[in-house]
Amino acid sequence: MASKNLLLLAGDGIGPEAMAEVKKLIAAMNDRLGSGFVTDEGLVGGCAYDAHGAAISDADMAKAMAADAVLFGAVGGPKWDAVPYEVRPEAGLLRLRKDMELFANLRPAICYPALAASSSLKQEVVEGLDILIVRELTGGVYFGEPKQIIDLGNGQKRGIDTQVYDTFEIERISGVAFELARTRRNHVTSMEKRNVMKSGVLWNEVVTQTHKARYADVKLDHMLADAGGMQLVRWPKQFDVIVTDNLFGDMLSDIAAMLTGSIGMLPSASLGAPDAKTKKRKALYEPVHGSAPDISGKGIANPIAMIASFAMCMRYSFGMVTEADRLESAIAAVLDQGLRTRDILSEGMTEVGTTQMGDAIIAKF
Amino acid sequence: MASKNLLLLAGDGIGPEAMAEVKKLIAAMNDRLGSGFVTDEGLVGGCAYDAHGAAISDADMAKAMAADAVLFGAVGGPKWDAVPYEVRPEAGLLRLRKDMELFANLRPAICYPALAASSSLKQEVVEGLDILIVRELTGGVYFGEPKQIIDLGNGQKRGIDTQVYDTFEIERISGVAFELARTRRNHVTSMEKRNVMKSGVLWNEVVTQTHKARYADVKLDHMLADAGGMQLVRWPKQFDVIVTDNLFGDMLSDIAAMLTGSIGMLPSASLGAPDAKTKKRKALYEPVHGSAPDISGKGIANPIAMIASFAMCMRYSFGMVTEADRLESAIAAVLDQGLRTRDILSEGMTEVGTTQMGDAIIAKF
Ligand SMILES: CC(C)[C@H](C(=O)O)[C@@H](O)C(=O)O
Ligand SMILES: CC(C)[C@H](C(=O)O)[C@@H](O)C(=O)O
Repeated sequence: MASKNLLLLAGDGIGPEAMAEVKKLIAAMNDRLGSGFVTDEGLVGGCAYDAHGAAISDADMAKAMAADAVLFGAVGGPKWDAVPYEVRPEAGLLRLRKDMELFANLRPAICYPALAASSSLKQEVVEGLDILIVRELTGGVYFGEPKQIIDLGNGQKRGIDTQVYDTFEIERISGVAFELARTRRNHVTSMEKRNVMKSGVLWNEVVTQTHKARYADVKLDHMLADAGGMQLVRWPKQFDVIVTDNLFGDMLSDIAAMLTGSIGMLPSASLGAPDAKTKKRKALYEPVHGSAPDISGKGIANPIAMIASFAMCMRYSFGMVTEADRLESAIAAVLDQGLRTRDILSEGMTEVGTTQMGDAIIAKF
Repeated sequence: MASKNLLLLAGDGIGPEAMAEVKKLIAAMNDRLGSGFVTDEGLVGGCAYDAHGAAISDADMAKAMAADAVLFGAVGGPKWDAVPYEVRPEAGLLRLRKDMELFANLRPAICYPALAASSSLKQEVVEGLDILIVRELTGGVYFGEPKQIIDLGNGQKRGIDTQVYDTFEIERISGVAFELARTRRNHVTSMEKRNVMKSGVLWNEVVTQTHKARYADVKLDHMLADAGGMQLVRWPKQFDVIVTDNLFGDMLSDIAAMLTGSIGMLPSASLGAPDAKTKKRKALYEPVHGSAPDISGKGIANPIAMIASFAMCMRYSFGMVTEADRLESAIAAVLDQGLRTRDILSEGMTEVGTTQMGDAIIAKF
């Protein structure tokens, strides 16, 4: 049997609370189903800075590189607002993405039927929504050089960031989007700002070529990123798969997540290229929500996004499609039952804490 | 009496149709009230390319520089999709912004009560919404160098754009935001990605310093731009003035506009620094909507954003506050009367075309 080595990086804030529920689930699966997961743990973010003076230690980075998959909680909090830029909590996450070459970030924005009413959008606009944002994750303005602040003298400084995209980067991320579209509604919308950015011109060109050469059976649309943001708010159901760069993907996927009224529910997967021999992809799974320091330690955090991230992990890293489906159904069933953590509470529903929610999902699984 | 020289650049698509209504209004004001507007016209965008091979000619650019204010319609359309990057329709608008040094883009997102129901958001989320996005307009990734596509050989190209911000640019745009906040609800939210971008670190630092030194009476919040986008969708009424950079401002202002359900209604102003002697600012006024080629020439375009842009022009360029107020009230009154262009039509309302809408507003003025 193939190995199932998981590295758990719970991080800061509500990360550890949410991760605790996944740990219970993994223990139950090993116990009941003999799933054979082997877990190890490490530090990332503010807690890693406190322990090692870095947002992730080289030792933990090595563990991440060796693991079959990484489960990531969340990083950051006011405690670390003043730490130097190079060791800020986010640097740990960015290093994981870069060193593991996790170029493909998959962010499903799904509106759980039980929660359609809790969106700030009209129910008919979001009910049944199921879109997938495929965000490029190792390029663009996140990593381009120069990236610096220069002192110009006279009290003037200059802040510089560089957006860089090469053909191969755009090709491989659009390939992922087209492949995934084929398993869904066969429709990709590519978003950039080609009317202002040269990287956008190249993006548009390469997506168009990749489509023509290898994926002509998939419907492809192009949209300017600002118009795309508007269309997401106006009528999100027009989309199936959206493919876009690192920075636009950051903005657009957060907006898409918020549309669903379920930000505490949404998972993500960050994948590398398949290894030439083993075909295995490096992978990291992470809830879309952040560390939510304001509610951490209170036992009220919603563990569903973290649990759903583990479902994605089973699906994409271990081919455990049945188990992933079952876990997702268990989440939906618990919601249908009326159980709610505080962030998604509405009239007539039953409020539960983090551990009760985790227990209920495990019980239904 | 101070001069009131207006340059009208109607542009492409529905630009000319919307501008025609403003021309009627100006004629009526000159006639009835002796307002003394003097207008000239020029070409910008695709129509300028067709006539001169450039998105704006040097002669029209000179007219824009000399005018007291520019009224701008919209540019672009599928006809010019394949023209070279340097002369694409948008280049005309970008040159106007850059050469006139229009660094401050004011984009009010107002939900007209009569239209609250037509938003994709729940009525209670947007009813009474009145926020102002102050977008930096002459810096950032729009204009930073290098901005190019390099051929790397082997079928590989590299697209590069550069985000650059200097202290003085951040200082002056945040000054505008703080000043405007004082005339409103005294609250500024600054948005950047300081956790990823060095220009964001500098942005945050300079806004904080400017606040401390000169505007400590105004409430200031900082938000990461992705979280800001989410909060705009979740509960936009938490904001008063949002100040942000050129690219984030492009995305966030479009999203804010869409929230109101009134994208065809929203104006914008782009302002330069006050002249040291005359105190006059260069200025350009422009609807937020684009050229909408799909509906152009049909007489159904909504002229309200263009007319409201002229109201902003009277307010900011000519101190005609009474007239601006009256024009805005006339727009609201016509909506209350139930007149609607097709884009904002809803049950029980009366559909009218572009000229009828213009006539009705002029009649109420
Ligand atoms: C934490 C931060 C660096 C990160 C990003 O900007 O990518 C986050 O916003 C995300 O979307 O995963
Ligand atoms: C037309 C385009 C260049 C422009 C921009 O990106 O600034 C538009 O989207 C806007 O917001 O005014």
